[in-house]
Amino acid sequence: MTKQAIVFRYGHRIIRDERVTSHCCLVARALGADKIIIHGNKDTELEKTIQEINSKWGGRFTVEFAPDWKKGLKNLKKQKYSLVHLTMYGIPINKIQQKIRKENKTAIIIGSQKVEKEVFELADYNVSIGAQPHSEIAAIAVMLDRIFQGKEFEKKFANAKLKIKPSKKSKIIEKTR
Amino acid sequence: MTKQAIVFRYGHRIIRDERVTSHCCLVARALGADKIIIHGNKDTELEKTIQEINSKWGGRFTVEFAPDWKKGLKNLKKQKYSLVHLTMYGIPINKIQQKIRKENKTAIIIGSQKVEKEVFELADYNVSIGAQPHSEIAAIAVMLDRIFQGKEFEKKFANAKLKIKPSKKSKIIEKTR
Repeated sequence: MTKQAIVFRYGHRIIRDERVTSHCCLVARALGADKIIIHGNKDTELEKTIQEINSKWGGRFTVEFAPDWKKGLKNLKKQKYSLVHLTMYGIPINKIQQKIRKENKTAIIIGSQKVEKEVFELADYNVSIGAQPHSEIAAIAVMLDRIFQGKEFEKKFANAKLKIKPSKKSKIIEKTR
Repeated sequence: MTKQAIVFRYGHRIIRDERVTSHCCLVARALGADKIIIHGNKDTELEKTIQEINSKWGGRFTVEFAPDWKKGLKNLKKQKYSLVHLTMYGIPINKIQQKIRKENKTAIIIGSQKVEKEVFELADYNVSIGAQPHSEIAAIAVMLDRIFQGKEFEKKFANAKLKIKPSKKSKIIEKTR
């Protein structure tokens, strides 16, 4: 069973991709990934946003930057991550999910601008979350949910200042410290 | 079993929310919803984008606009939609999904700016896709995947000009007409 998942965001462009990449970070964090590695230049604004979220809502999710994607991916291979590249051209998730769940450590790769052919080749799995154009943000979410099979929502976020008490009709936030 | 799902996007702001709302539309379409209703002013750019996607990739996904959200939601109730409001304050999806799957017609409501209290009250279900802040785009995706249980990816998109042939390592697009 997959014990650890991280996300690798390929081709982040500062300004143009800011909001989408920030959604990618938040989704990775909220759906059980430990880390996101962003291919591109260091984006201190983004780092700050995630630090603020961690400090309020807990957990140890981290953001790293990889200026060279090829080195970044090869490095993950060395660390025994299985590389799962999400692309509408890949093998349908319904067909391949059982195999992926058996991997110990998974790095989910998602692109933004045009993805190089070598990413397809380096990947252990090229997987489609539907063979229709949609959103890398949604693709990460479905992939993590399929890997962790719902257990990601039961994960504890340590040292949170705020916590939500689930409610049928209201907003209930508890301060924990 | 749920036969039909649509998405209702609350509080869309032209320009500021453009890219996020466009992701919401594409995700709704790709993950089996029939329609998105956008609360806000008519956004012809967005309509055009979706028409172009339909014309290339098939299917009959539609975009509508509802200037008055309250009328829009009450109208959906009249049409026997069960209203599923996605909010981090709601009941965890893992707990409530079986009940929601029994609904015939589901309207998934997602907010962007601050959501009015009355939305919580009008909703038949207030549901959390994790009790952590993340992304409405991801929330729609997980909700639709949980409702349709993977079958959304087997849906045919009629009259597509382009079709993808799933592949382990390549990009294969077929022209169908």
